[in-house]
Amino acid sequence: MELVKDYPLSKRFPELPLLSAANTKKHSDLIPFAFGHPAQESFDVPLLSQSAVSALQLDGPRALQYSGGSGPDFVLNWIQQRSKHVSISVETQNILVTAGSMQAIDLATRTLTDPGDHVWVEAPTFFGAIRQFSLAELKISSIPVDHNGLLTDELENKLKEAVKNNVPIPKFIYVMPNYHNPTGVCLSIDRRKKLAELAYEYNFYVLEDDAYVELSFSGKKLPSIYTFGPKRVIYLSTFSKTIAPGIRMGWALADDEQIILRMKMLKSDGSTSVFVQEIISHFLSDVKFDYHMKRINELYCTRKDAMISAVKECFGKEVTYTEPEGGFFLWLSFPEKVNTSEFAGDALARGVSFIESKYFYIDGAETNHIRLSFTFTNEEEIKKGVQRIAESYYRYKKSIEVLNEV
Amino acid sequence: MELVKDYPLSKRFPELPLLSAANTKKHSDLIPFAFGHPAQESFDVPLLSQSAVSALQLDGPRALQYSGGSGPDFVLNWIQQRSKHVSISVETQNILVTAGSMQAIDLATRTLTDPGDHVWVEAPTFFGAIRQFSLAELKISSIPVDHNGLLTDELENKLKEAVKNNVPIPKFIYVMPNYHNPTGVCLSIDRRKKLAELAYEYNFYVLEDDAYVELSFSGKKLPSIYTFGPKRVIYLSTFSKTIAPGIRMGWALADDEQIILRMKMLKSDGSTSVFVQEIISHFLSDVKFDYHMKRINELYCTRKDAMISAVKECFGKEVTYTEPEGGFFLWLSFPEKVNTSEFAGDALARGVSFIESKYFYIDGAETNHIRLSFTFTNEEEIKKGVQRIAESYYRYKKSIEVLNEV
Repeated sequence: MELVKDYPLSKRFPELPLLSAANTKKHSDLIPFAFGHPAQESFDVPLLSQSAVSALQLDGPRALQYSGGSGPDFVLNWIQQRSKHVSISVETQNILVTAGSMQAIDLATRTLTDPGDHVWVEAPTFFGAIRQFSLAELKISSIPVDHNGLLTDELENKLKEAVKNNVPIPKFIYVMPNYHNPTGVCLSIDRRKKLAELAYEYNFYVLEDDAYVELSFSGKKLPSIYTFGPKRVIYLSTFSKTIAPGIRMGWALADDEQIILRMKMLKSDGSTSVFVQEIISHFLSDVKFDYHMKRINELYCTRKDAMISAVKECFGKEVTYTEPEGGFFLWLSFPEKVNTSEFAGDALARGVSFIESKYFYIDGAETNHIRLSFTFTNEEEIKKGVQRIAESYYRYKKSIEVLNEV
Repeated sequence: MELVKDYPLSKRFPELPLLSAANTKKHSDLIPFAFGHPAQESFDVPLLSQSAVSALQLDGPRALQYSGGSGPDFVLNWIQQRSKHVSISVETQNILVTAGSMQAIDLATRTLTDPGDHVWVEAPTFFGAIRQFSLAELKISSIPVDHNGLLTDELENKLKEAVKNNVPIPKFIYVMPNYHNPTGVCLSIDRRKKLAELAYEYNFYVLEDDAYVELSFSGKKLPSIYTFGPKRVIYLSTFSKTIAPGIRMGWALADDEQIILRMKMLKSDGSTSVFVQEIISHFLSDVKFDYHMKRINELYCTRKDAMISAVKECFGKEVTYTEPEGGFFLWLSFPEKVNTSEFAGDALARGVSFIESKYFYIDGAETNHIRLSFTFTNEEEIKKGVQRIAESYYRYKKSIEVLNEV
């Protein structure tokens, strides 16, 4: 049979840049600082294995059915209790378990907005979130971040200006308050309060993505933005960094049950794998979670220290950074005229990957930073990887100096 | 803090009817014919348990990481091979593993359409699909089904008329070719061919939802619609009815890789739980799948026979039905003036649930049928459940006869 015409697919797909690190598998001895993978050593494989057997042997038929057994309720209760650590008090019907926190971002976005609506993000911000907002056909603007997180004064000015000029204010602002991706900084208490106040005053939501909250080297936790303005915050978190990403489990919570019900309606994968929830309920019931996190954070802190030592040794005063107190990432800033995309390919060829800053800005505005993940590789690899970056960088620097002399 | 204004949520949410069977948990001795749950006896719990242990012990760290180990590739290859049973030949990059086939419907829908586009469905059709199309803000029309499935002649007339009147033709038509939900009928070979020809001629897609294809009592399988028009068909299926719904795993396949890539882009849950895929890869590698399905189908055929016996005994010539040769459902048709919603509540109070026909029509047009699932309950329960429906029905019938006499 012959096809008569082309078929027009949906107009919703933006032209998205491919991450250069998508090619990372090609080098045989690659040191991957690019992606935010947890350390393999962080997975409690024996306990997960035992949990899987328990879930199936104790209540297999229910665990495998559409709605599951008691596991999903157990998981909800656990999240409810754990949320108290960031001063959140919430009923279980206000919590939705999702297949990872990216799904929570997607569902919250499509619950709050229609195509053409405005949304504001931090600059820099997580590229995965930018992608979701683009797919939702939103207009995206950004507000800068400093070492204390989102600049709420600048936010307030921008809101005032929008109102003055009769320009749409955002339906929501997407913020990562703890160990921000990519910069690693935390939003100060004062700014958390200020942000919640602005949300109430100007009537926008805050999408509070708290994926890294448990990754605190000191064990210290600040109260969430939600605490200060529950009626205009949707709070998200995940088990990806604490138990394992492969289980695909995160959650969203909101004070307004209508939001949770609508997110559930959009959730076309049904209840997030009840089979996995049954397994995770056994895991959570048996693990000593605080001890489990302490072990992981000690490992990550050591790796972070190793990375900072290597950076000092290889780069001296050539770069700047805010030393992270948790999370997964070190954000290295080179002199302003540097374009890190110009040596990312050479670095990859030498066997090290990182993500260039342009991917973290909606307009690719700042090009002189790179994001390095310190969690997945060991101390020896970290040292070697940073050396490889330095080789690439200094070679690039020399080449532009030569160009400038010409 | 005070909230100044109401916050308008997205306009995409339709007013959706709540299924009355959503209340099914309330009766202590309920016989649930309402939902399409597989029999608990169909789950191979010991092998799944063993598969979970193997997946974690042999390759735990990779199974728990974002991208998984060798499991996802194994699953893709298995689907590729199994697709040959319905005459589909496809490369693995043209297959997308999804978290159940409903997610595949959602992703395909948003890949093919924009809000306001038209889509046509069978009448009756699966309410879950109607829900996805409503959430995607599509305009839905329907074409009737008879005992050989979708009326392709009527479809052709409607297409001709649309072209003549310069009315939009559908972006896609959603069809269940095998053991159709809710009627249980199969689309004849001639109509499959005709449908594919029309798709090519009029330039629309067919969303071929083949969730029940493996549930064949005779073991016989017809070639898929995809076979006759791969360039205008997206084919979907699932492990929910064959392995277990709780694992949340299905798939979509398409000849056009651009469609698969875009569906992947919309898939905000990342790779469908790689942890579960690792487990399922071990399961698929060890199970004798044909034997496994034969065992399940024998069980379901016995239950279907029990249901038909009970219907004959309790209803005689009062109802009609097409005896299903597979699948999950018996579709009972009462005399035309009957409104099955008028005795569904009473039936529920007597301890039996079913789904009334209004939920399967976009406009609730036909009210005189009910869908009964014969898979989840045993022969004794089936007999008792059908008796309860009969009690409710005859009580209702008497009451409307009295009304008519008045």
